[in-house]
Formats: sequence, C-alpha cells, structure tokens
Amino acid sequence: MYEGLQPRELSTSESLRLLGTIRFGRVVFSRYALPTIRPVNHVLDGGLLVIHAHPGITLTTDRQMVAFEADTIDPVTQHGWCVIVTGTAEEVTDPDDLARYRRLLPTTLPGPRHRIVRIRPDFISGVEYVPAA
Amino acid sequence: MYEGLQPRELSTSESLRLLGTIRFGRVVFSRYALPTIRPVNHVLDGGLLVIHAHPGITLTTDRQMVAFEADTIDPVTQHGWCVIVTGTAEEVTDPDDLARYRRLLPTTLPGPRHRIVRIRPDFISGVEYVPAA
Repeated sequence: MYEGLQPRELSTSESLRLLGTIRFGRVVFSRYALPTIRPVNHVLDGGLLVIHAHPGITLTTDRQMVAFEADTIDPVTQHGWCVIVTGTAEEVTDPDDLARYRRLLPTTLPGPRHRIVRIRPDFISGVEYVPAA
Repeated sequence: MYEGLQPRELSTSESLRLLGTIRFGRVVFSRYALPTIRPVNHVLDGGLLVIHAHPGITLTTDRQMVAFEADTIDPVTQHGWCVIVTGTAEEVTDPDDLARYRRLLPTTLPGPRHRIVRIRPDFISGVEYVPAA
C-alpha cells in the first residue's frame, strides 16, 4: 500500500524527546481567518514549547489555539520523524521567564524576536517513517 | 540582528520552481476549527499544486482556504529555502485529471490516497536562508 515508507507511531514521551533534539519547527495558526505557517526556533521548558512570536500569534490577550510541527523528514529519501503538537499559546510576560527564555531559545532562524510565546500542548502525535520491510 | 542566517526573499517564479524540485511539503488547514498540519507529497501542474487529500481538506463541496509549506531547511545548520503558498483547495473529480495526477503524484509518504486535491495559489512567498556575511 505504501510503496516507500512505513509509518511507526511514536509515544507522547518519545515525541517530546525528539522535539528536544532539534532547534526549529513550524508554527501553524490562523491570521485574518487564513491558515498560516512560519518556521521558528523552539525550545522545550518541561512539557511546554517556547517560541518567538510572529505577528498573528496571540495579538490579543486571549489564549489562541495553534499547532506546531517539527520533523527531520529528508527531502530526498523522506526517511525521518514528524511530531505535531496542538495546544494553546499565550504570550510570556513574566520578566524572569522572559530572561530565561531569551537565554535558552536558539536564534538560528531569522524572524521577529521581541515577543515570546509559550504553547501548552493539548495533543501530541508523532510518527517515524521507516523503510518498508 | 540575525546571528546565524540572513533571509533572502525569493520571487514567485523562483518559489514555484523550487517547489517543483522536491516531492513533499506540509499542508495546513482548519479541522473542527483547530489549526492542523500534515506532511504530504505534492506535484506541480502548471501553477497549481496537487496533493493527496487528508481528512479535513474539502470535506464539503465548498472551496477551502489552505496553506502549504515546503522547505529544505537543514535541521542542524538551518540553511535552505522555505516556500509558503496560500490558496483555495478543491477536490479533483474529473476522471482524466484524476488518472493523470495518480500517475504524477509521488507516493513516498504514507497517508490516505483515495482523494486528490488541487490548490490554486493566491499568495506565494519564498525565502532563502543564507549564512550571514
């Protein structure tokens, strides 16, 4: 059925562990009712996901549903893993948290840096694509 | 400002050309009002983007706004390019089109295969991340 690769489901803890091994993913949110996606650096803080905010993420004080995807799928072979998180984003305002996150967050990707957002995961799913037997 | 990488904006035609050089991206859509993202194989048909449909994409006969992102950003160095398309998705129903797309669409990624969706781009943006001078 799947000519190339076989999917293997990952547990929540495996998925979180893998998220912690790379420095960027893609945040997905609605902006002016349009689905939007942007590559961003991330860091894990316990079970929370911390990213720099793009315009359109928590522009209001309401908590906002977002998704976050990170993967190591190879552009050629398509081997790798993919983790998808859905959760609520809120802007970080505590000065101590802000200082700590500014230290921890990788800054390899260009993008706005002045606001930081924390995502509390509601659902985490992960899959590894391995060569079919 | 950007310690690691400098962004270089890509033209629409460059972005489309790059999309045609790889076989998968990530489709972004709303499902039950939640932002959702799934890795999918894609192929270009002229200026249209063709993918296998996941549950939640054009479940109705209405056209649906979706985004599509493909990149070659390296998980370690973060060098590469990133193209983002926003457009309207509609299910392909013409038997000749379906037959042709089934032939053309790569099938390296696992996922549902029975429905095919065509995305007509409204906005295309692309950026290349190059080492800062």
